Amino acid sequence: MQRHADFAEFTEVTPTAQIAQSRHGWRAKCLQRLIRMELPVPRTVALPFEVVRAIAAGQMPDIEGLAAVFGEDFVVSIRSSAEKPEWGGPGTILNVGMNDRVHARLIGTHGQEAADALYLNFVQTYATQVARLDPDMFHDEPGPGALKAALATYRAETDDDFPQSATRQLIEVLRSMARGWEGTTARLLRQAKGAPAEAALGLVVQRMALGIGPGLSGSGTMQFVDSVTGLPQITGRFRGQSQGRREEVGALYLTRDPRGASLEEADPDLFAQLCDFGARCRVRLREEMQIEFTIESGQLAVIDAVKVQRSARAAVRIAVALAEDGIIGREDALLRIEPRALTELLHYQVDPRGARDPLGKGIAASPGAATGRIVFTSAEAQASAARDEACILVRRETVPEDVRGMHAAVAVLTERGGMTSHAAVIARGLGLPCIVGCADLSINTRERTLRAPDGRVFRAGDTITVDGTNGEVLAGVADMMEPALDGEFRTLLHWADTVRDIGVRANADTPDDARTARMFEAEGIGLARTEHMFFDEDRLTVMREMIFADTAPDRRAALDRLLPMQRADFIRLFEIMAGQPVCIRLFDPPLHEFLPHDRDGMRELAEALDRPLSEVTRRCDALSEFNPMLGMRGVRLGVTVPEIYDMQARAIFEAAIEASRHGAPVVPEVMIPLVSAAREVEIVKTRIDAVASAVKTEMKADLTYRLGVMVETPRAALRAGEIAPHVEFLSFGTNDLTQMTYGLSRDDAGRFMSIYVSQGVYEEDPFHRLDVEGVGELLLMGAKRGREARPGLRISVCGEHGGNPESIAFCRAAGFDYVSCSPFRVPVARLAAAHFALLAPRGERAGEGVQKS
Amino acid sequence: MQRHADFAEFTEVTPTAQIAQSRHGWRAKCLQRLIRMELPVPRTVALPFEVVRAIAAGQMPDIEGLAAVFGEDFVVSIRSSAEKPEWGGPGTILNVGMNDRVHARLIGTHGQEAADALYLNFVQTYATQVARLDPDMFHDEPGPGALKAALATYRAETDDDFPQSATRQLIEVLRSMARGWEGTTARLLRQAKGAPAEAALGLVVQRMALGIGPGLSGSGTMQFVDSVTGLPQITGRFRGQSQGRREEVGALYLTRDPRGASLEEADPDLFAQLCDFGARCRVRLREEMQIEFTIESGQLAVIDAVKVQRSARAAVRIAVALAEDGIIGREDALLRIEPRALTELLHYQVDPRGARDPLGKGIAASPGAATGRIVFTSAEAQASAARDEACILVRRETVPEDVRGMHAAVAVLTERGGMTSHAAVIARGLGLPCIVGCADLSINTRERTLRAPDGRVFRAGDTITVDGTNGEVLAGVADMMEPALDGEFRTLLHWADTVRDIGVRANADTPDDARTARMFEAEGIGLARTEHMFFDEDRLTVMREMIFADTAPDRRAALDRLLPMQRADFIRLFEIMAGQPVCIRLFDPPLHEFLPHDRDGMRELAEALDRPLSEVTRRCDALSEFNPMLGMRGVRLGVTVPEIYDMQARAIFEAAIEASRHGAPVVPEVMIPLVSAAREVEIVKTRIDAVASAVKTEMKADLTYRLGVMVETPRAALRAGEIAPHVEFLSFGTNDLTQMTYGLSRDDAGRFMSIYVSQGVYEEDPFHRLDVEGVGELLLMGAKRGREARPGLRISVCGEHGGNPESIAFCRAAGFDYVSCSPFRVPVARLAAAHFALLAPRGERAGEGVQKS
Repeated sequence: MQRHADFAEFTEVTPTAQIAQSRHGWRAKCLQRLIRMELPVPRTVALPFEVVRAIAAGQMPDIEGLAAVFGEDFVVSIRSSAEKPEWGGPGTILNVGMNDRVHARLIGTHGQEAADALYLNFVQTYATQVARLDPDMFHDEPGPGALKAALATYRAETDDDFPQSATRQLIEVLRSMARGWEGTTARLLRQAKGAPAEAALGLVVQRMALGIGPGLSGSGTMQFVDSVTGLPQITGRFRGQSQGRREEVGALYLTRDPRGASLEEADPDLFAQLCDFGARCRVRLREEMQIEFTIESGQLAVIDAVKVQRSARAAVRIAVALAEDGIIGREDALLRIEPRALTELLHYQVDPRGARDPLGKGIAASPGAATGRIVFTSAEAQASAARDEACILVRRETVPEDVRGMHAAVAVLTERGGMTSHAAVIARGLGLPCIVGCADLSINTRERTLRAPDGRVFRAGDTITVDGTNGEVLAGVADMMEPALDGEFRTLLHWADTVRDIGVRANADTPDDARTARMFEAEGIGLARTEHMFFDEDRLTVMREMIFADTAPDRRAALDRLLPMQRADFIRLFEIMAGQPVCIRLFDPPLHEFLPHDRDGMRELAEALDRPLSEVTRRCDALSEFNPMLGMRGVRLGVTVPEIYDMQARAIFEAAIEASRHGAPVVPEVMIPLVSAAREVEIVKTRIDAVASAVKTEMKADLTYRLGVMVETPRAALRAGEIAPHVEFLSFGTNDLTQMTYGLSRDDAGRFMSIYVSQGVYEEDPFHRLDVEGVGELLLMGAKRGREARPGLRISVCGEHGGNPESIAFCRAAGFDYVSCSPFRVPVARLAAAHFALLAPRGERAGEGVQKS
Repeated sequence: MQRHADFAEFTEVTPTAQIAQSRHGWRAKCLQRLIRMELPVPRTVALPFEVVRAIAAGQMPDIEGLAAVFGEDFVVSIRSSAEKPEWGGPGTILNVGMNDRVHARLIGTHGQEAADALYLNFVQTYATQVARLDPDMFHDEPGPGALKAALATYRAETDDDFPQSATRQLIEVLRSMARGWEGTTARLLRQAKGAPAEAALGLVVQRMALGIGPGLSGSGTMQFVDSVTGLPQITGRFRGQSQGRREEVGALYLTRDPRGASLEEADPDLFAQLCDFGARCRVRLREEMQIEFTIESGQLAVIDAVKVQRSARAAVRIAVALAEDGIIGREDALLRIEPRALTELLHYQVDPRGARDPLGKGIAASPGAATGRIVFTSAEAQASAARDEACILVRRETVPEDVRGMHAAVAVLTERGGMTSHAAVIARGLGLPCIVGCADLSINTRERTLRAPDGRVFRAGDTITVDGTNGEVLAGVADMMEPALDGEFRTLLHWADTVRDIGVRANADTPDDARTARMFEAEGIGLARTEHMFFDEDRLTVMREMIFADTAPDRRAALDRLLPMQRADFIRLFEIMAGQPVCIRLFDPPLHEFLPHDRDGMRELAEALDRPLSEVTRRCDALSEFNPMLGMRGVRLGVTVPEIYDMQARAIFEAAIEASRHGAPVVPEVMIPLVSAAREVEIVKTRIDAVASAVKTEMKADLTYRLGVMVETPRAALRAGEIAPHVEFLSFGTNDLTQMTYGLSRDDAGRFMSIYVSQGVYEEDPFHRLDVEGVGELLLMGAKRGREARPGLRISVCGEHGGNPESIAFCRAAGFDYVSCSPFRVPVARLAAAHFALLAPRGERAGEGVQKS
């Protein structure tokens, strides 16, 4: 190997050595810190990245020099040390240096059995991982003759004796580990964890502390918090060995335990020393660490220390505790929690420690888990809910009429659909566990059965569990873990709120939604859809009367009956939100969504309306559309059937005045959907302003309200400059905007989306992650033009993307005022927004990376 | 009136007088030209715009001076003279100056009857048009006592005698005409003809040449071309009067006629003089003029001359003849023809001179007229066509499966739909006369009857005529005028071709379309849709087999059977187009369009495929979509079911090589539809290139082809910079792009489009006229980004808008290479393009009027 004057080929890790995480990797640096804390770490040498890279390329450093550090007949371990622990690396190889001579020496010091076991272990490891021989030939358990057999097999397979030179072993192991890092699989795996293409490997060579010998010996790990709960608790394992024979001492509990002997009792001083190490690590390394140690005849050695594995819940508790103990700052605590990880805290989860009886697997469409009885229709779901019986709605796929059934169910399971199917989207909005596209299970709606691939048949009323977090359907009841809305979680989010610089509201249609939004401390409602309010049975009938009315006065008569119900809806929303802003979207869906689709339904409707079936059929027919998404809905209804918006505006304003009388003053926001031309806004605005004036006079009350536009068509974004002067806010409905920008129906995309994403046609489902390049450009154009035309215009996003961290980064960079998302995503959004505020300096906010023209 | 030193209040029209069309109006200028040509024009005075404006404001010029021009006891006419003849103006008032004294004098010179008639005529005109009295009181026919009665009525109504002062009459008539010009209705009418808001009126006062007297006397008009055909022919009228008694001489034919006496025979010299006047006018005024004249005892006076009224056909003949005679330039000839007017030349028209028996009126969706027997289904239409019987397809509305029936019919009539309904769009494409939204007629498909509002019932097989030009449905056979594809028409378009600077291609799917495109001299096919090719019965079955195939090899097997048919289709197209470019769009519609929609169809399909009905129903069901427009179609099929495009590419390339062997070399253009991401293009391009290589090798032939993208989604326009490097052309499909930019389905927009346009929400149906502000901006962005990424990229528009003059102006301004439109619109597009090239200097081409940001 070419000698470099400017860097050491290897460096012994001492308190003062030049060890850098960016050059020697995280493990080398961590070991140096332990050494600086005067923990009993065995002699350790670090190989920097460039040397390991050279080794992989076929060169070899000064091995004699390296070996000389450890002296005659050394036995060492070699561990990987990438720059970040999560990037992985080749597995540790122990006992390098074992050969016949060392073996003979160990027989003398530790006995035949221990020496054999150590040598056999190394031969097996070396044969399979370094010499790449077939592992099947080297799986013998330790025992008489096993070592001999392994050495013989090695000789037979390689036509060579097992290498006796410790430096030769060192060379081969180093080369093998260095090359393992370059393998394709390893590269893909670490890149998936965020490693850059040029990520390098360091290696750490450490004298083996064997942990065998007379007296208290063995090896173990110890940590000081629970990995699942994050609460302080000593956990870990210790396996004692005497002369290599485990069974003589066996496993000890770490702490005093009625069930058996413990390390704490066996050597209280040593145990106290370990606890002291843990406490010092926590402060000095600013992290909860798991310590790996050995004991050789009562002598403690700390081999390694790694960050404690932790659930999301534990992560939050650990970070908050560290910050509250003054060990780390609050900002650091915030940045240590991955926002998406919070999702699992907001739902019941199947306890991973419990038994599982899986029936099939589908797409995990909405996280959380729930157990309930199977129902196959929305009506059954509602009946079940009325009996206070938890039920799971099982459908081939869901349609808008199923929303009531979904409200009544504790989980949803469908045979068809993808991440963006109706069931998936609504369930995420409701925070219901949901599995879609579960093609494993065959649903027979007529026979009301659910058949598993193993032949088991489940009927309506049978109990199953839906695990929406991992997509598994389980038979019967499963053990659950409760959602953790605990104090630390709230504390962390309050810290987030003090840091973030973009608002977070919730999309909420119902009082339940609104209460959830309040629970998760959303700053108001960014999108209250009003159409769900018309699906209740008593309202649906009136709604249909309205649709079938032949004249404006008849329509108004029907709407007059809906008015008090709508007003009551809004009063409830306003009361729950207690003065926080509530942005109400005016009626949006095409009218035919409220009509029956089958013959039976039409017959019922004909009876209810006392009209001939033929007329009902004809009218339903006439209202049906080829492309409902692009049809007669939203503001198009507002312009052509203005009575609906008149009624809604009146209900909103009367409710606002009413709620203000008994509680905090309400400033309702009214949002017009599906706008494509400024004139639509003018027309609707004129009528709404007139309704407001009338209500103010009638109720002798003052009223402030804000009018805005939901930007869902590309044209509304392009013409935002014309629209803005009429309104006080624009809110981008990125769901529909994505559909129209791509020419892609969310309901129909499921058929090819997975192929598209897997072939890289779309980097990601654009309904799942905001398409920054296409849709994003329209957002930026719309916001820019809108604000140029009306300085101070409030801009937001209220599509599904609103809760997505990448979208939040985008909206913040573009200077939007707030995002609005499903209530269950509010905590994620609050934390993500805080992250971006901490990570991206203010000056850099300007829609980076987006093509401008 | 305030006196102005710098302009004359009135000017006698003499050869040297300062008369300007921009100050005195077209008529004053025209009369001056006649005077300069030494035609016998009676003494004439012109009042300029500013004076007429002052009169309307209540001031009055030097009336005494004006009257003095005409001497004692004058009788004059007063005519309007706006800047352009088409802006109209108040009607002419004759015989101003008539009073008791003149009346008495005329009795002496021309007899009682003539004098009474003249006086009565003036009293009636003055009373109704100047004094604004009730016309009902002044409608008496001339006869004994009528004059006296009129004068008495005048006195009774006004409490005043009929004004005897000629100057007073002059003042009142001038004021009345000046104020008439300012009226709201008049202003709206002229603004509809393109007059600016400040358009002014001039007036012309002319000594009356009464055209009565002893010897040959009377009045008439004469023109030298036929108004309908434009061919040279003397037409007009002459009504002789002797002493005011018409019946004594009566009407004369102008030219020698076996049916009776003629002016030519009565006074050959005078007739020759008139012919000479006509010929001189044509040369000097550079226009075919109609001359208005009187004869008083053999003495000719030319009162006025106006442009000959003309049909579009006549207009073309006249302009070409003037240019060919060297009287005007070719450019002038081109500019004299309004491009849209050509439409009526390209279709049969109901002869306006024939009898009409109207049944009902709908929307004139596609021009032209046709007579045929009623059929109610596509199958009947095809059967009828097979018998060579003209038929008219009558449907409540049409669906894609009806296209074959529409091909077989001579016209289409639907009860529902608007200008952009399926029937309307397809019919325009096919050049079929079409009426949609004919709600007057009640169609009963089951009973196969058509009921008119007057109660008449028509059955399948009955004959009707569809007049798609004016939207009328007529009973029985109507007299027709043939389309005029005559020499002058061709000549004019060839002149247009030498002038225009943007290409014009045709959208053509079938050999018939292609032949029409050739006939209208399109420069190639800009959009050949391939899906219609699969609706023929034998192909449909194979197509369905392909759709139902479970594996790629099965799909390929079905497609292999379609390959020779497709190849034959393309060979025919290439042969007809004889080396001109043909741009073939790969398969676009969702597959479910090829499946039956009703139970009977499914049963048949199950039989044909030998599969259980339940399976067929399930598969059809599974393929159906919520929003087909935004679903699994276009390139999405190309990526996920690549075998279809493979087959089509092979058919195109094999056909191109085959056609090149026997005719002009073919360079096919292959266009990928519904692209939303560059990667789609990469994937399809890779496969198409591979097919091309294979075909070249197999056929041992060379092959050049161009690959392009149809830009139909907003995202494709936004990301054109990424897409362009992979392709040689981008063609904007403005139909779909409009749908997606507005979030508006063309099929569903009919329900509210008329309300939207009438309320001014949309200025015009955006499917009818390109939305320059929204969709247009995407076109400009796409073109700019595409060309920046790939200089020389060919850009075009191939949506319905392509044939629209405003769209052509837009595309030309944006520097597009060509537009492609329905074959029947090609002539309009060629002429419109020439107009823009002549009118808009090259430097001004840059998408004027479009918001940039």
